[in-house]
Amino acid sequence: MPTLTPEQKRRELAAQQVSALKLDALLVTSLDNVRYLTGFTGSSANVLVFRDGNTVLFTDPRYTVQSKQQVNCSIRIAKGPLTKQVMAEIARTRVSRVGFEPEYLNVARMEALKKALPSRARLLPVAEALIARLRMIKDDGEIALIRAAVDINSQALESALKRFKPGMSETRLAAEIDYQSRKLGADGPAFDTIVAAGKRAALPHARPGASKIGPGMLLIDMGAFLDGYASDMTRMVHVGPATPKYKRAYRAVLEAQLAAIAAVRPGATAAAIDRAARRTLKTYRLEREFVHSTGHGLGLEIHEAPRLGQSDKTKLEPGMAITIEPGVYLEGWGGIRIEDTVLVTNTGCEILTPTPKDLVEV
Amino acid sequence: MPTLTPEQKRRELAAQQVSALKLDALLVTSLDNVRYLTGFTGSSANVLVFRDGNTVLFTDPRYTVQSKQQVNCSIRIAKGPLTKQVMAEIARTRVSRVGFEPEYLNVARMEALKKALPSRARLLPVAEALIARLRMIKDDGEIALIRAAVDINSQALESALKRFKPGMSETRLAAEIDYQSRKLGADGPAFDTIVAAGKRAALPHARPGASKIGPGMLLIDMGAFLDGYASDMTRMVHVGPATPKYKRAYRAVLEAQLAAIAAVRPGATAAAIDRAARRTLKTYRLEREFVHSTGHGLGLEIHEAPRLGQSDKTKLEPGMAITIEPGVYLEGWGGIRIEDTVLVTNTGCEILTPTPKDLVEV
Repeated sequence: MPTLTPEQKRRELAAQQVSALKLDALLVTSLDNVRYLTGFTGSSANVLVFRDGNTVLFTDPRYTVQSKQQVNCSIRIAKGPLTKQVMAEIARTRVSRVGFEPEYLNVARMEALKKALPSRARLLPVAEALIARLRMIKDDGEIALIRAAVDINSQALESALKRFKPGMSETRLAAEIDYQSRKLGADGPAFDTIVAAGKRAALPHARPGASKIGPGMLLIDMGAFLDGYASDMTRMVHVGPATPKYKRAYRAVLEAQLAAIAAVRPGATAAAIDRAARRTLKTYRLEREFVHSTGHGLGLEIHEAPRLGQSDKTKLEPGMAITIEPGVYLEGWGGIRIEDTVLVTNTGCEILTPTPKDLVEV
Repeated sequence: MPTLTPEQKRRELAAQQVSALKLDALLVTSLDNVRYLTGFTGSSANVLVFRDGNTVLFTDPRYTVQSKQQVNCSIRIAKGPLTKQVMAEIARTRVSRVGFEPEYLNVARMEALKKALPSRARLLPVAEALIARLRMIKDDGEIALIRAAVDINSQALESALKRFKPGMSETRLAAEIDYQSRKLGADGPAFDTIVAAGKRAALPHARPGASKIGPGMLLIDMGAFLDGYASDMTRMVHVGPATPKYKRAYRAVLEAQLAAIAAVRPGATAAAIDRAARRTLKTYRLEREFVHSTGHGLGLEIHEAPRLGQSDKTKLEPGMAITIEPGVYLEGWGGIRIEDTVLVTNTGCEILTPTPKDLVEV
């Protein structure tokens, strides 16, 4: 029996779903899903997965050479719009029920596809979960990449903090973090690195600014992509001695984070993990300052399923890679968030992030 | 008369378009258009522009503080999905004809909006051009930012090349470029920096790899974002003495690039600029190796209107910022591309990129 590549296995699973939904084919328009199913990393591509597992990648002439190097399914190079080439394939193969991804197809392209569709064929929306569910459970190769991406991220923070001096600007420290990460082999940051000092830490998604990092709290939220796979970590540093208020809030968030991690095991719902964090913050009367969800899956995207929020009923399964990142934010004072990347295992979870979480004063 | 901010002026122009299309309001779902119209830089937002110019920004609690700092229109913080809050506003204001951006609204969200829409209201697609046309013509502040982004980009290349040694990997040089750019004040790269050595230069969108940069050609395509605005430049370096074949191809591409630049003036069509480049490459019998368009507009996005391709009939106007970047690609040999960012002026154009284009051997 020939050994299948990871991409071939994923296409087989996808084809089973296509068949189970009584579709003839699935049109994949999310570039991350294209990469997941074929290995292709170009910026313009669609994929058709047929119910028999046969798969065709569509891209443009800029990627003629690259697609041949990366992909082990059929390739069509479209001289004009991909839509035309996709429709030619649908006509040629005489399929009629073609699923599409409504979250990854814009209304304008949908209209263009409908116009060009052979009269016998119909476009039918499929649930986002079709590929997203496959992607939630990482295979060994994916876990190895996430693990390596997490390690690079932690090493990059350590190296960057060695170069940190009070008075350095937020943007400068962010640049240092990204550079160390790249030198360690990362493709690049998994999102815009957040370096937020003092009151600016009250902005959960702060952009680094030109302001100098003075005495006070410092929030760093950073991630690295490695061969397409993401890591994600948030750590706090206190420049100078921490105040009692900071120490109390730090302890509250750390306890909430540990409580959430302790709740992670196969069969637990995503919402239950979120509740564990909120319950702890409530004992500190800080639950109203926790304005986002407790975490999210990560992989080819920095945010993917599941979402560890109050209403996500997804049951955790071994092989899921998720973040655990409660935080509290007080306008005019600052904010605290602590985040690890963890892997759901057969018995509970493994914290992948090696960086310590003790309260740090520099 | 009160002085309007650039965002207020843009909202007035947008409102005029809304009114001219006999719409009551426009729902803006493109984050770049949201930023253009309001200055808001968060990762989750919608905007409603009413025909009287009144504008409402919708975002979530992560951005409560940031939105107040960045925006001078009304703000609604949505505790749940933005869709619900947007619909509440549509109901409250009793509008009926609501335009939307079909290129920036996915089918899934469209269905959700339709379901929640008050019975009197209708959603009507507007041409992408509505905001894109406004964005094509840059105002003084935008031109100043693009100019500064271009300068940072050129300085970063110069600094990175000073640190370059043959034998360095593509990824390492790319990391060096991005770091220098950030140290000079860039927000980050405008796209994944391309560093492609030898045969890999045949891939127009090559990702830097671990391979060492040996003797031979080296293609570097890089851009920097500064306060949200992009620059874009491609330069070639030859490690060791260049071959006659390389020299001829380099001359062909440079002549094509200069011919295209010479054609840039108000009133010329985007397609005419593209033709000028192709005509020159034809005299070298290299036109079939030029597999992409000659350039593109840039601003808040690295690729925006116009597209300098064979079928774009947009007439150039003063204030447009565009790239001019012909290239030729020969599988198994390599590729050459030369790219500047240029500004359309009243009489022709100004090449913003200061980096020389002589054939460089290091």
